[in-house]
Amino acid sequence: MEIKVADYLVKKLKFLGIENVFGLPGDYNFNILDAIIKDDELNWTNCTNELNASYAADGYARIKGYGAIVTTYGVGELSAINGIAGSMAENVPVIHIVGTPKTSFIEKNVIVHHNFSDVNYHNFQNAYKNVVKTTAFLNFDNAKEEIDRIFDVFVNEKMPVYIAIPIDVTEHLIKEDDFDKINYKKSEELTLNEAADKIVSLIEKSKNPVIFFDYLCKRYKLQNEILNFIDKTNMKFGTFLMGKGVIDELNSNFIGVNAGKLSPSVQETIKASDLIITMGFLNVDLNTGGFSAFEKEIDIEIKKDEVIIQGKIYKNVLIQDIISKLNEKITKTFEKNNFKQTTKKITGKEKIQTDDILPIIETLFDENDVFTMETGLVSLSGAFLNLKSKMEYISQTLWGSIGWATPALFGAMLADKKRNHIMFTGEGAHQLTVQEAANFFEYDLHPVIFVLNNSGYTVERVLSKDPNDKFNDITNWNYIKLMQAFSDNKDFYSKKVLTTKDFIETINEIKTLKGKKLCYIEIITDKNDFGTLCNKFISNMKNFASTL
Amino acid sequence: MEIKVADYLVKKLKFLGIENVFGLPGDYNFNILDAIIKDDELNWTNCTNELNASYAADGYARIKGYGAIVTTYGVGELSAINGIAGSMAENVPVIHIVGTPKTSFIEKNVIVHHNFSDVNYHNFQNAYKNVVKTTAFLNFDNAKEEIDRIFDVFVNEKMPVYIAIPIDVTEHLIKEDDFDKINYKKSEELTLNEAADKIVSLIEKSKNPVIFFDYLCKRYKLQNEILNFIDKTNMKFGTFLMGKGVIDELNSNFIGVNAGKLSPSVQETIKASDLIITMGFLNVDLNTGGFSAFEKEIDIEIKKDEVIIQGKIYKNVLIQDIISKLNEKITKTFEKNNFKQTTKKITGKEKIQTDDILPIIETLFDENDVFTMETGLVSLSGAFLNLKSKMEYISQTLWGSIGWATPALFGAMLADKKRNHIMFTGEGAHQLTVQEAANFFEYDLHPVIFVLNNSGYTVERVLSKDPNDKFNDITNWNYIKLMQAFSDNKDFYSKKVLTTKDFIETINEIKTLKGKKLCYIEIITDKNDFGTLCNKFISNMKNFASTL
Repeated sequence: MEIKVADYLVKKLKFLGIENVFGLPGDYNFNILDAIIKDDELNWTNCTNELNASYAADGYARIKGYGAIVTTYGVGELSAINGIAGSMAENVPVIHIVGTPKTSFIEKNVIVHHNFSDVNYHNFQNAYKNVVKTTAFLNFDNAKEEIDRIFDVFVNEKMPVYIAIPIDVTEHLIKEDDFDKINYKKSEELTLNEAADKIVSLIEKSKNPVIFFDYLCKRYKLQNEILNFIDKTNMKFGTFLMGKGVIDELNSNFIGVNAGKLSPSVQETIKASDLIITMGFLNVDLNTGGFSAFEKEIDIEIKKDEVIIQGKIYKNVLIQDIISKLNEKITKTFEKNNFKQTTKKITGKEKIQTDDILPIIETLFDENDVFTMETGLVSLSGAFLNLKSKMEYISQTLWGSIGWATPALFGAMLADKKRNHIMFTGEGAHQLTVQEAANFFEYDLHPVIFVLNNSGYTVERVLSKDPNDKFNDITNWNYIKLMQAFSDNKDFYSKKVLTTKDFIETINEIKTLKGKKLCYIEIITDKNDFGTLCNKFISNMKNFASTL
Repeated sequence: MEIKVADYLVKKLKFLGIENVFGLPGDYNFNILDAIIKDDELNWTNCTNELNASYAADGYARIKGYGAIVTTYGVGELSAINGIAGSMAENVPVIHIVGTPKTSFIEKNVIVHHNFSDVNYHNFQNAYKNVVKTTAFLNFDNAKEEIDRIFDVFVNEKMPVYIAIPIDVTEHLIKEDDFDKINYKKSEELTLNEAADKIVSLIEKSKNPVIFFDYLCKRYKLQNEILNFIDKTNMKFGTFLMGKGVIDELNSNFIGVNAGKLSPSVQETIKASDLIITMGFLNVDLNTGGFSAFEKEIDIEIKKDEVIIQGKIYKNVLIQDIISKLNEKITKTFEKNNFKQTTKKITGKEKIQTDDILPIIETLFDENDVFTMETGLVSLSGAFLNLKSKMEYISQTLWGSIGWATPALFGAMLADKKRNHIMFTGEGAHQLTVQEAANFFEYDLHPVIFVLNNSGYTVERVLSKDPNDKFNDITNWNYIKLMQAFSDNKDFYSKKVLTTKDFIETINEIKTLKGKKLCYIEIITDKNDFGTLCNKFISNMKNFASTL
């Protein structure tokens, strides 16, 4: 049997569980969109611009496992590049499919719109080579083989990939078979066993080990495996901000999020420990309270495809294989711990304080909720948010591109409509991508959205020489009216809160509305209420920089 | 005398006449912004996101000659790449200055936020290499030399350039001298004279020559030189869409915009001509009514840095030099022509017709106005818009990135606040970048903005297989309420027009408000009123494609 290239691609996407593809139409991608639209199981979702589409696909992939966007040649694909680079940074698998002009134009270097006058049809693919794991530019000869190769990388690496398809190649017929075949990477079996044995023996010898799970455990969907490991061993465990929520935070072995010196109790546990293990960890400033996560050596580092044990590197050991192997081999059980979440005290001042915001918001949480956190003044505090059982926490900690959250929330909601979604953003970040909010109404979604309005890019006021620098001011909008403009006359709940009392009352009100109606809350704080965490972080960063 | 790198850069920008720099703050570019803000003659302008900033800088450069944006490493610079690529396509000089992490982090490959976990500090510069004329990454040793080199290319090529500056390098001291020195490219004098003599002799031998000016005449600011040439010779002349308005369209020698077969009267003139000359012309689909500009050979092509005369190439002849040389040498005067603008008849139907929109809008034009045209259903019709004396027409014809117009208008207005600005966009395009409208209020600017609301991406309805394809639908907004949300309670005029009568009355009303108050007009047409030009264009494109 033969099948059109575009339809083959659709089959591959569906095979990975993708049900929604995001993007914008353009005259070079119509054939791809037609293939998506005519398929009953795959949905096309128009976003408001391509950057938003890439963020939406990223949010979708964080929940669903994989995400996809389609854009048009040049103008469309380049507008999405920052979002795709963000997925690269955060190891989120998003496939970017680009429709290009037809083969005869490419072969003869004909300049059509969305090109340079000095035309090179590979310019934009070449730009993308710097921000994705691999790229392909299809033609009549390589189409099947290249699609298959791209998907192999996509699945194995869980990273963004890029594929450009000339509009006529989409209609080309190829063999239908093997759309469901992925060449999975495998661990070197001997090394895998050797590494696992070594880890098991070190754990068995230790008295007080601690393990930290981070973002790669989420990407490789290792939640069940690592929970088994914890249940079996009763080992104390923590996460980092990027891995927050990977195991139920109500688990009695959970010591907290390691935000370095910002999390002193976690540091105490590390100090007392005789074996430190990390799994899928990224040592980057915003994930470690300013490079302050570990004051002593990490004994065992389980990485994506290698394990480092007391300085010795075990190559070609995949993270998903080593955890299975450990569960197979480990027998040691430590005494069950009894860690409990600590609730932050609310200062109760009349005006809302930055430090009080998340402790108030967390009273709205229920089991299974999904919380999306924007980068900004408050994002570091996310580490100390008490999650309820089975809650998902998503944020863009390493890449930290402000504006990500609003479209990412949209993508996350389409990935799981059954759960309730709550988002927190600052008004500065919100402005960058705000138009995607129209899609909440279009798709009848009911998130709870908190927007902190503190009159500017406040995290940058903390970081720049003079907090009053003009460049940290932003234009003053009426956010609730803005939502009305996007709402297409659909009903939603909105409130602007200025006092702690109002804020708490509002939370109580929306407890009954959550999931039934979109709730949009604008929280007003003082322009110069920086909260307490940012300055501590800066001081940690200065300490670190002085060691270089 | 010594000067900080950032201050030296500021001096170079000011030397080129730049008075406004666009962009967004980020913790890696604060030192650059501080240098801009402390300078009394250079203004910093916060945009709402980086793509918008790049479009604003593009609009600014089209009016002022040069534009500049500053973004932050990774997240900021990549968000702007589509706008910068647009400037590349359209030969618009915009300098992109990027603040990066400090030298010690770069040298030691430390991963800080806005990076990949597999860090390479040159990734994003490498991406940019594909979309700008040249790039530089400054360090303590190369700073002065590289800034000077970048500016030489910037001025000579009038194309985008990219410069990345680590935050500590901005503070580094370099020699202050020579900030005002540019190494100008020069024509090969002998070849220049030879080419000029040949052109003059061909013109003198011809009976009925015609010359077409295009976009490079605008970029190299040759308006006065080419007007002298026309005044001296009385040669018939036309433009293309990308060069529209480069000479006063009321000039009696102006035959019109050559939109290929969409402009039959211009085609008649070409047919009757015995010498065809183009200057700074780009033969691309949307600039030529679908590759139908010339049914016969062009005799003389004056390009950026070479001239082709009857097939013979004269290299290293610069466009700005050849026009001066021709003015020096030419003596022939043809009989003065008496071409006049033809006003399109308005159908006068009750519902507003797509074809009637621009003919109604042009009744609002006055001398000196600046008209900004978005890419979309109506942009091809821009060719037939009757401009008043000294009007400027700006559009993004080759790159055609929808959403460009709103921020480009903002940039153009800051470049020339004295003139009245009018913009036309479609609601589909408007949605992509709409938040930049907040800056019209912030900066107390008073453009007249027309938004065609025809319920979707209508130009794509024309181009795709089925006009009702779901992917050409967009979310339904209340645009006037949206402007209210952005307005910070400032007064503006707004109107939603559904009938031809209302539309004409509205135009009459805003004649008195123009320049005094922001005017925002939403024009409603039928979803499937495609106008007449698009289908003609498609048929021309099909003819062209069949010849490949």
